[in-house]
Amino acid sequence: MSPSAIPVDVRGETDTSAVVVPDPLAINALAAWRTDGAVPTGTAAFSSSDMFKSPACFTRPKAKRWDHILSTEAKARKPSTLKAAAAYLKRPGMISLGGGLPSSENFPFEEISVKVPSAPGFSEEETKKTGKTLTAGKHDISEGKSLLDLEVGLNYGQSMGFAQLLRFVTEHTEIVHAPPYADWQCCMTVGSTYSWDATLRVLCERGDYILTEEYSFVSALETAAPLGIKAAAVTMDEQGLRADALDEVLTNWDEKARGARKPHLLYTVPSGQNPTGATQGAERRAEVYKVCQKHDVYIVEDEPYYFLQMQPYKANVPPPSSREEFLKLLLPSFLKLDVDGRVLRLDSFSKVLAPGSRVSWIVGAEQLLERFMRHFETSVQNPSGFSQIPFFKLLDEEWGHAGYIDWLVHLRLEYTRRRDDMLHACEKYLPQEITSWEPPSAGMFHWIEVSWKKHPGFAKGQSHADIEEAIFTASVDRGSLLSRGSWFRADHSIPEDKMFFRATYAAAPADKIDEAIKRFSEALRAEFSL
Amino acid sequence: MSPSAIPVDVRGETDTSAVVVPDPLAINALAAWRTDGAVPTGTAAFSSSDMFKSPACFTRPKAKRWDHILSTEAKARKPSTLKAAAAYLKRPGMISLGGGLPSSENFPFEEISVKVPSAPGFSEEETKKTGKTLTAGKHDISEGKSLLDLEVGLNYGQSMGFAQLLRFVTEHTEIVHAPPYADWQCCMTVGSTYSWDATLRVLCERGDYILTEEYSFVSALETAAPLGIKAAAVTMDEQGLRADALDEVLTNWDEKARGARKPHLLYTVPSGQNPTGATQGAERRAEVYKVCQKHDVYIVEDEPYYFLQMQPYKANVPPPSSREEFLKLLLPSFLKLDVDGRVLRLDSFSKVLAPGSRVSWIVGAEQLLERFMRHFETSVQNPSGFSQIPFFKLLDEEWGHAGYIDWLVHLRLEYTRRRDDMLHACEKYLPQEITSWEPPSAGMFHWIEVSWKKHPGFAKGQSHADIEEAIFTASVDRGSLLSRGSWFRADHSIPEDKMFFRATYAAAPADKIDEAIKRFSEALRAEFSL
Repeated sequence: MSPSAIPVDVRGETDTSAVVVPDPLAINALAAWRTDGAVPTGTAAFSSSDMFKSPACFTRPKAKRWDHILSTEAKARKPSTLKAAAAYLKRPGMISLGGGLPSSENFPFEEISVKVPSAPGFSEEETKKTGKTLTAGKHDISEGKSLLDLEVGLNYGQSMGFAQLLRFVTEHTEIVHAPPYADWQCCMTVGSTYSWDATLRVLCERGDYILTEEYSFVSALETAAPLGIKAAAVTMDEQGLRADALDEVLTNWDEKARGARKPHLLYTVPSGQNPTGATQGAERRAEVYKVCQKHDVYIVEDEPYYFLQMQPYKANVPPPSSREEFLKLLLPSFLKLDVDGRVLRLDSFSKVLAPGSRVSWIVGAEQLLERFMRHFETSVQNPSGFSQIPFFKLLDEEWGHAGYIDWLVHLRLEYTRRRDDMLHACEKYLPQEITSWEPPSAGMFHWIEVSWKKHPGFAKGQSHADIEEAIFTASVDRGSLLSRGSWFRADHSIPEDKMFFRATYAAAPADKIDEAIKRFSEALRAEFSL
Repeated sequence: MSPSAIPVDVRGETDTSAVVVPDPLAINALAAWRTDGAVPTGTAAFSSSDMFKSPACFTRPKAKRWDHILSTEAKARKPSTLKAAAAYLKRPGMISLGGGLPSSENFPFEEISVKVPSAPGFSEEETKKTGKTLTAGKHDISEGKSLLDLEVGLNYGQSMGFAQLLRFVTEHTEIVHAPPYADWQCCMTVGSTYSWDATLRVLCERGDYILTEEYSFVSALETAAPLGIKAAAVTMDEQGLRADALDEVLTNWDEKARGARKPHLLYTVPSGQNPTGATQGAERRAEVYKVCQKHDVYIVEDEPYYFLQMQPYKANVPPPSSREEFLKLLLPSFLKLDVDGRVLRLDSFSKVLAPGSRVSWIVGAEQLLERFMRHFETSVQNPSGFSQIPFFKLLDEEWGHAGYIDWLVHLRLEYTRRRDDMLHACEKYLPQEITSWEPPSAGMFHWIEVSWKKHPGFAKGQSHADIEEAIFTASVDRGSLLSRGSWFRADHSIPEDKMFFRATYAAAPADKIDEAIKRFSEALRAEFSL
């Protein structure tokens, strides 16, 4: 499909046929075709990433079809009768007595304002001094002041979210990931926790196994378990998921022994994995993708920590000197490698703006995204307008893509500082003879291995669980709370040979991190009689 | 359990043993035990309605047990491992490196403000002139300025929502509904659409039937269908669901013929039912409840329109003269009648504050609510903090319960005016010989019966569907969109003897309502050759 063949009904009136688009998309290239006229601003207006993708996207091949992995539930979903009726609203002069939408005159909110940092003064102190107040009024759209207001933003919406913010998210996705197939879509959701719950319901049946890291995000496993979905554990190394181990699990899958069909879905956290902090390098990602192609496995990449990729530890590397350099430093996502359209990316603002916003989005092949949107229509509908409005004001109207990238660079350095504080404390306090770790290169988590077989209890026959419990309790008793590695085991039937504790450097300030690691160290010394 | 036996750990330090609580709870009675000290204000702090219910609640008998209606999925849910670890945070001096919560210094929001009406100046114009701006800062809690701030409100939360708003919702529930059993709970959710999706997953299995009105909210049916849950239609009259018909369906349930066990769940919209606008009177509700007791049926009351109960039509009744009179005018909810704890109330701010907020709550027996909270922990988590913060500022800090009741009285009169506009237009334009209706006493919907057998096509053998389609199309062609009654049929296998169109008076202004009904009338006249 050539750029000039982009359907006008979804792409508005802009003539994009002459636009040459760099691949990946450069931030300033957007100006060539971005027009506010392309953004539908009606109440509960339909929109689609296709309205906002660059012309180059449409020249690429389409994704593979995924009919064979849709669940019974997902296959049975039909479009909403009432939302379909909204199509008649496009006719000029139509008066609707159809939908049960309240009138905005009865919303007791006349204005919403947020005080935000002006780039590059991103710190709390700078924001207090130089921060800017962004205001959305009730009728800004009809008054020509903004593309989004309270009249639209506080009423019902469509399941992909408000076009105004969907545009930003779509463009951001293209700038960072440049998916190498044509028919990718973004859809806003209410947090990756929910995106994952929905994914399991859209793509799995009761009794299925999913593939995941041997230590995996425990909440993700707890989402799957009540649905009757079990985890098949894949061995990890310092780069997280091992591609060869993945191939092995799949190649040797024994349907009879497992009592389940061969898994068709991989759940992975490639960057700053929770709980291990491991990050898959570019080559590893390509290997994993290849194994998934070989066994026709669909990949769900849960990437809340993607932009918490940090500076190398103790390498004295200067911060990225430009936005372009920053973008180049980022590891390729699975989405970026995804020539087949076999990746669902769970993306989120939780770790980079604020988790309480409950605003996130998913990216994937149109065929599957359409099923997700049907799912959302009868469940969560769309993220809160009270969240989407400030995010639109901040990201699109105030910062733009350039300012948002600057913010992400700021976060990169913030997390580098925090990670360094954590590692310095560990180097200072932890007994070297029984602890070891890899410096994390992304995310929020430091994963500390403890040589539990050197614990005096081991010789006396104490179990892994007993010794882990003893260390955990000793630390808690000293006022330091870490997470136990065993909490994150994907498959509790496999005996645990190693022992780990997870410590986050995201929350506490430097002095508290120092003190907590000191206490944990004292607990270890007491337990190991050092 | 006597009031003095209320466990102190959940009810704080207040000595409530001497408090005499009126039943139902009067607004000003709250002052006797309400203390801000009872509100947990920590990041992601646990809370419970028990912290905020009046002492009298605890003297009532407990709800029945509902183990026998829990789904396979709901029974399998375990408490979140990571959220359980948060219990250790209560120990004094504990430093947590446990949970992956980002630090609020990295939230790029320093303040949020909303401009809201000052009671009683509720209109848009009055708000512009006399409205008040409410502001939440990032560290208002530690600075002693407020119980809720951005540091807490924009971070992760617990599945019941933030204690600050949960308190208001709990008190509001007690003031309005005074549930007649002890262990009721409220839990915030992200909209009743989702509450209903969760309800089906918590209480039903694939293959089940649920009971509902013969014309029912089509989105609710569309939520159930992909889960393999069918609707058993119960005949309605001008008061909606008929208790005798419900008894009949249940008494004569033929498991073999239906291929399903006897239904154990009723889904009903008692006030201003969608789509019929019918409202069950107090006696009808008591009858329905009794039938549900007889057959041990659990009741889900979906009540978005409860506070859109209006003044009687053309009766020239003056508006309620006091808050107490307003509350007395409200029909009793099923929750108010619920001596067994067999009611789940789906409550919502969507129709009374703003649907885009995606803030709602459910009320029901503690045993079931605990299962819902587990469900939310691994799915939607909690409503957006960007929504909860303004709602808390407006409802709790600014209006209080008194001001909120005043707002609801204001809405009652607003909707009365809108309903009257609709009925006046119908009286003015619609051909009497082929249309009839009951004036709605609650909600957003006017349900117009059309005598389709008088349509010239009927004698020529045209079907119900054909004639409905012809009228719909004729109206759309004239620029007036109403909803077709058949869209809302609970059971499409039962032939439809009557024909209806649904018109809402919630959205359009008076002149547009007038014009749309005029156009619909012209369509009818053309179709019926009048």
